[in-house]
Amino acid sequence: MSYYPRPIRFCNQCGHAVCHQLPGDGDARVRAVCPQCSHIQYQNPLNVVGTIPVADDGRILLCKRNIEPRFGTWTLPAGFMELDETLEQGAARETDEEAGADIELGRLFSVISVPPAAQVHLFFCARLRSLEFDPGFETQEARLFAPADIPWEELSFRTVSYTLRRFLENPQGTQVHCFSLE
Amino acid sequence: MSYYPRPIRFCNQCGHAVCHQLPGDGDARVRAVCPQCSHIQYQNPLNVVGTIPVADDGRILLCKRNIEPRFGTWTLPAGFMELDETLEQGAARETDEEAGADIELGRLFSVISVPPAAQVHLFFCARLRSLEFDPGFETQEARLFAPADIPWEELSFRTVSYTLRRFLENPQGTQVHCFSLE
Repeated sequence: MSYYPRPIRFCNQCGHAVCHQLPGDGDARVRAVCPQCSHIQYQNPLNVVGTIPVADDGRILLCKRNIEPRFGTWTLPAGFMELDETLEQGAARETDEEAGADIELGRLFSVISVPPAAQVHLFFCARLRSLEFDPGFETQEARLFAPADIPWEELSFRTVSYTLRRFLENPQGTQVHCFSLE
Repeated sequence: MSYYPRPIRFCNQCGHAVCHQLPGDGDARVRAVCPQCSHIQYQNPLNVVGTIPVADDGRILLCKRNIEPRFGTWTLPAGFMELDETLEQGAARETDEEAGADIELGRLFSVISVPPAAQVHLFFCARLRSLEFDPGFETQEARLFAPADIPWEELSFRTVSYTLRRFLENPQGTQVHCFSLE
């Protein structure tokens, strides 16, 4: 299963078949242009926003995925940023939806471009205000892991393992880690 | 003119009229669902990526816009992130396309959520390797401004003025500025 966007075949404004061509407005990229209503459908990378929820004793909250892709593996709570929200609001919403965790959102921690998936993953630090969780349907189990017990071989995504490794190297640091995964 | 996405009316996979409904997969948001082929079209915020190109003498490169919105105002070079590129590649590409500037890309400087536009703007620091520019069709003029001469009243977007103000307060700082504009 891939999240890379499917090629566009029809105009989503009028339903006519699109042409893949230069739009003629100076844009140097081929786009899905409607020959009937002239609407241009663009495809661009999407943001995935999440948190590193940390208990006061240093344990980290991970969620066991109940959905594909990577069913049954462990992830930080994260998901697609939605319209009408900020990065911070999206990260907090996903933490609530996937873990039912009560958090105090902290600083931006990592910003990871993932061109093969046409995504950018952004993780924020978060302090757990409570150790009671109420996972949603996307999560089989929400569990706290001491740093020594992180299931490195069973993590869902490389952006999660990179973010966790950078975080555990320096939990008190203030650097924002910006990098890319090919 | 608004960049907020237009409501979806037709399936871009099969051309059938869509229904706006809960998709039935646990998702709690109304989506554009195709009753014929079951394809779900999502709409999410987009990333706008750009740079703060600085000459060795401290002057900053701004571009006078030759396109709407905000025709004739001054902006930092920036534009929509494209598929198949990282944030850094997108920021460098936009700087080349809009200003024809030869830069050495630096660190991530600002990350600004703009929910009313369904966008996130991300600016990177950049050092100008040359003071010769070759603006593309989107730019009337590319010009260097000393900090005291920045045309604050004629800047294109609030994300540009916020980014420039934070940068000029502390050009050598290492903080990533993460905030939101309503």
